Amino acid sequence: MENQLSLFYGLSFLTAAVAFAFAVYLYLWVKKQRMENEKIKEVSALIKEGANTFMRREYTVLAKFALIAAVVIFTLLPSPVWQGDVLKNISMAIAYLIGTVLSAIAGKIGILVATLSNGRAAEGAQKGIKPAFLIGFRGGAVMGLLVVGCSLLGVAAVLMITGDSSILLGFSFGASSLALFAKAGGGIFTKTADVSADLTGKVELGIAEDDPRNPAVIADNVGDNVGDVAGMGADLFDSNVAAMASALVIAQSLSGGTFANTSMVFCYAILGLLASVIGIATARIGKKGNPTRALNSSTYVTTAVFLALTAIATAIFEGFSWRIWGASATGLLVGVIIGITTDYFTDDSKPIVRKVAKASASGPAFTVLSGVAYGFISALPAMVGIAVSALVAYTLCDPMGEGYAIFGISMAAVGMLSIVGMIISNDAYGPIVDNARGLAEMGGLGEDTIRTADELDSAGNTVKAVTKGFSIGAAGLTVISLLGAFMSEVNTALAAAGKELITGFDIMSPTVFFGVLVGAAVPAVFSAMLILGVDKNAQRMVAEIHRQFSTIKGLREGDPNAKPEYSKCIDIATSGALRELIPAGLMSILATVVVGFIGGPLAIGGFLLGNIVTGLLLALFMSNSGGLWDNGKKYVEAGNEGGKGSEAHKAAVIGDTVGDPFKDTAGPSINTQITVVSLVSSLLSSVFVAFSIFG
Amino acid sequence: MENQLSLFYGLSFLTAAVAFAFAVYLYLWVKKQRMENEKIKEVSALIKEGANTFMRREYTVLAKFALIAAVVIFTLLPSPVWQGDVLKNISMAIAYLIGTVLSAIAGKIGILVATLSNGRAAEGAQKGIKPAFLIGFRGGAVMGLLVVGCSLLGVAAVLMITGDSSILLGFSFGASSLALFAKAGGGIFTKTADVSADLTGKVELGIAEDDPRNPAVIADNVGDNVGDVAGMGADLFDSNVAAMASALVIAQSLSGGTFANTSMVFCYAILGLLASVIGIATARIGKKGNPTRALNSSTYVTTAVFLALTAIATAIFEGFSWRIWGASATGLLVGVIIGITTDYFTDDSKPIVRKVAKASASGPAFTVLSGVAYGFISALPAMVGIAVSALVAYTLCDPMGEGYAIFGISMAAVGMLSIVGMIISNDAYGPIVDNARGLAEMGGLGEDTIRTADELDSAGNTVKAVTKGFSIGAAGLTVISLLGAFMSEVNTALAAAGKELITGFDIMSPTVFFGVLVGAAVPAVFSAMLILGVDKNAQRMVAEIHRQFSTIKGLREGDPNAKPEYSKCIDIATSGALRELIPAGLMSILATVVVGFIGGPLAIGGFLLGNIVTGLLLALFMSNSGGLWDNGKKYVEAGNEGGKGSEAHKAAVIGDTVGDPFKDTAGPSINTQITVVSLVSSLLSSVFVAFSIFG
Repeated sequence: MENQLSLFYGLSFLTAAVAFAFAVYLYLWVKKQRMENEKIKEVSALIKEGANTFMRREYTVLAKFALIAAVVIFTLLPSPVWQGDVLKNISMAIAYLIGTVLSAIAGKIGILVATLSNGRAAEGAQKGIKPAFLIGFRGGAVMGLLVVGCSLLGVAAVLMITGDSSILLGFSFGASSLALFAKAGGGIFTKTADVSADLTGKVELGIAEDDPRNPAVIADNVGDNVGDVAGMGADLFDSNVAAMASALVIAQSLSGGTFANTSMVFCYAILGLLASVIGIATARIGKKGNPTRALNSSTYVTTAVFLALTAIATAIFEGFSWRIWGASATGLLVGVIIGITTDYFTDDSKPIVRKVAKASASGPAFTVLSGVAYGFISALPAMVGIAVSALVAYTLCDPMGEGYAIFGISMAAVGMLSIVGMIISNDAYGPIVDNARGLAEMGGLGEDTIRTADELDSAGNTVKAVTKGFSIGAAGLTVISLLGAFMSEVNTALAAAGKELITGFDIMSPTVFFGVLVGAAVPAVFSAMLILGVDKNAQRMVAEIHRQFSTIKGLREGDPNAKPEYSKCIDIATSGALRELIPAGLMSILATVVVGFIGGPLAIGGFLLGNIVTGLLLALFMSNSGGLWDNGKKYVEAGNEGGKGSEAHKAAVIGDTVGDPFKDTAGPSINTQITVVSLVSSLLSSVFVAFSIFG
Repeated sequence: MENQLSLFYGLSFLTAAVAFAFAVYLYLWVKKQRMENEKIKEVSALIKEGANTFMRREYTVLAKFALIAAVVIFTLLPSPVWQGDVLKNISMAIAYLIGTVLSAIAGKIGILVATLSNGRAAEGAQKGIKPAFLIGFRGGAVMGLLVVGCSLLGVAAVLMITGDSSILLGFSFGASSLALFAKAGGGIFTKTADVSADLTGKVELGIAEDDPRNPAVIADNVGDNVGDVAGMGADLFDSNVAAMASALVIAQSLSGGTFANTSMVFCYAILGLLASVIGIATARIGKKGNPTRALNSSTYVTTAVFLALTAIATAIFEGFSWRIWGASATGLLVGVIIGITTDYFTDDSKPIVRKVAKASASGPAFTVLSGVAYGFISALPAMVGIAVSALVAYTLCDPMGEGYAIFGISMAAVGMLSIVGMIISNDAYGPIVDNARGLAEMGGLGEDTIRTADELDSAGNTVKAVTKGFSIGAAGLTVISLLGAFMSEVNTALAAAGKELITGFDIMSPTVFFGVLVGAAVPAVFSAMLILGVDKNAQRMVAEIHRQFSTIKGLREGDPNAKPEYSKCIDIATSGALRELIPAGLMSILATVVVGFIGGPLAIGGFLLGNIVTGLLLALFMSNSGGLWDNGKKYVEAGNEGGKGSEAHKAAVIGDTVGDPFKDTAGPSINTQITVVSLVSSLLSSVFVAFSIFG
């Protein structure tokens, strides 16, 4: 069986190499595409420069944070350095740093490809929907393949070298902590620019979304890249690593079949990556094809290929269990179902978006109220889906022996995330074509091209909802398995301290209950801090835009010699985002530490539960209501309920502005926050066992 | 010791009688006050008639519901009628019906006094702040005294006659189920009218809030009565009964000291009522006094008197424990602290409201976003407070023996609600003076009087936030103790069925976890249904108002011969509210039943936890952000950030409209929803033990 595991280590490296090679091929293909329009070249270069400046400044701040964290980790983890094995502490700190570096690379490469693809996709749109779609999609796929390749490579290498799955938690924490700040920082940047550009441009002046007169327009396009591409890449890298790490920690704690179970985790990850490669390679669109359908059908192809390949592997390999396969399959199918129901709430061809658009005719308060209400309702199917998949996975795997039930849940998360390569490709496609639309307008490519780009952009919005369902659902399942990982870490520490082991977290215990209530408040406060960050930052940027319009002569009137100072806006978004991103992330980590020191491991168990419960609810609510408002506005702009310029349109724009930080700043940061908090808890379990007031 | 209990039964009846006598005295005092203005008499009669019509129609619907529920209860509870003791089933059904009837009476009397006081308070305001304050406050106090007297009387009578505390759960369920529908129905009514009146009057026509030309103005004043008076009375009656019932169920299950503990619950309830009587009797305000300070100082007097009296009782009576006293005192103090922090977030002399007002200058999206963000943050101190009080109560009482820890938590809830008589008085004061303000305007009593009435009204808004903190906090603690009551009921049923007892609800169990996630989604869906109810209903009413303005000649211009058809608006609010109130309440009850049949008692334990956690979060968020927006608007109207008519004002009005159903429909209904779900679970525990799929 140990040979089997070696085989899978080898296959993991090989598959990662295949993914990298395919990514390079797609990168070269995109690069070969034509980009000749001078204006587009110029603006594209500005976007690239702005994004790179932000990333450089962000990573400078985060590098300091990571180094401090690495020192703390070296000193304390897995056990205080003066008590334990120094080599282990060094490994943990190095694994942590590798996690942060790989996460940073994922973001950086995403930016590189996205800023390469956007201008080319804009020019592609001149020739029709097919070439533009392929450029956007393949640009996104480069990022998808690299992220998943990196996570597979990193996890396999760390485990093979150290042989100790708890070091994986350090690696995963590196990925998550960076993702938390990258997502928050990028989210604040992008929405600061978006909200300010919309308010000053669309609402006050009545000019088009990407009008080059608007000083915030480049910052807005930069934001798409640093928020939706880099942030999202770091986020899904983190989710994928966390799901694999928690499955591997549990697999190694299982009595009997350790190697087979560990192999199985790698096997599923490998097959998921291969399925994504196949899905990406087969993505096709007709000349007049529907881009939403093209994206969705690639997702379904990937899903089917993954299910078939894993079934074959389960039949072939010794020690692979059909029950575990069932758990993974359930996770993946529930992910698809969550995606479909999310789509129901956010797609403008479905009734909900139309109802909200209709409510807008009665004024903005009704837009907001109905969006909030449907956002609340939209959380129900996803939460029931996650609950059911956990229940099914548990029930399927429980008969296999002690610990297998939780392993089943962790494999449901691995299953849900198996097609993450495909998901990232779809997700990164969105901001690329969104940028392409802006470039088409700024480059003056004409109405037809803009319309084609609009169609591509709208598909990006819809598909985003589906992929968000996956990442939130997977975070839910991952955290349940991390709760299992946390309990096993705590019991190891308790056994070492000669104390009584814990058997679970009973909600009738006031310590657990204390943790639950505090944990439940954290995602709300975290979201609030991010929203307020956008709020404050956008007020600063709006003031700057007003200043430019009033002091730069001819700018408002469209004099071609009047140049807006784009870089000032980029600078405000950057420094504001950097100022606001640390407090929210730090607050969640500190809250975990404080609860742990007050209530010990039992309180932390409750804390994680409370955190995940309201975290899921708020993440689903905010992502979906935000998507709903965005598409509601698009629906009105398409000429419904009075169309552009009507009262309904004004109300819909307000709804969209409220939704912006919901769906692109707070909502998608919450799942990273949940993961970080879980990992901090697991890593500090021995500390909490040793020092706590009530624990 | 049995003699001691008999003593407290006797004292309970005596105290209730004292409270009733004092209420009658205050009622006669209010009635004696002058009401001579013809216009005020006329409008006051219209309000009274509208409120009574709504109540009659609402109670007709609810009577049918209650009768059906009574038949179901008779058939199934406490055990199926064909298996158990028929007499017990009859007692349970009768106790249920008494609970509903007392709840209905509480609402009805509240309306009676409120509609008696409003016109008198308006005329009192002509003479100054002092007489108007006393009329409003004493009118509210009549309701406060009657509600608390009824709950003490009802609980004591049911327990004394049946001697079976589980019958109390039936009584409590009667109170809660009616409160759920009354709160939801009244909440939908009041906000339908308020939102429609504001949108058509303030926003579209730019006329004052209570301008008699507006066809919705009477409906708006009726709404204050049926939502804030009748609904709130039913709500706090329910909370108070539930807290006492759960404490008594646990007291009776304790080994040793049963009588002393039961006596203690009654003793504390009696002393709380006496403390409220003293607080009400000593309420004073100077000629130029500050009404907010007067209301708050009566609350503090009541708190101090309660703590002193219970300390004396604990010293005197045999078997009374200082640990339990400590738990109650902690509950009460935490309630006060929650109130103070809530005040910090919603009072316009504090920074938060001013920040939101400032954000409004950048547009309505910023009003909404900053209000949502601060609303999220405001939940933190209250949730931590509830968590800490549960932890302290548990830790204090745990050494007393098995079961005492949970008893301590239930006594913390009883402590928090001990001053409920005072709280209701303060709460009912609000809508009375709100109505008085409207009547002063419609009766043409002049600017000075309106300004006096405005000052009284603003105090009502601030104090409301404090009292809401109490009721939400108490619901939190009550539900923890109901969870304890549920577990003891389940174990009784399991023992009877010869099955293994449960020792707790471990969140690592997937059945518990399943319940947690589904339970967590329920308050969100419940809130959404209520908000959508207001939304739909208000759209209908706005259409009707537009119709009246366009078809009734001279109405818009203020021709004194043009009479708006007030009754049409009242009718729309009524029938809409009745249509929307049943589904939301029924959904929460059905969700409980479905989860119970799927996952059995373990899933229900999780369900209750999930329900309470997100229920608390959403209730605090919605109540506080709603209060924040309301006072933000008032702050702008007072001349800040550009004052009335400015862009900031328009944005603030939109924020207030969003906040209306948050703070007066969904937010305050959630704690009733939590209580109902807990009681349904406890009552059906034997059914879930007998029939469930995974349980």
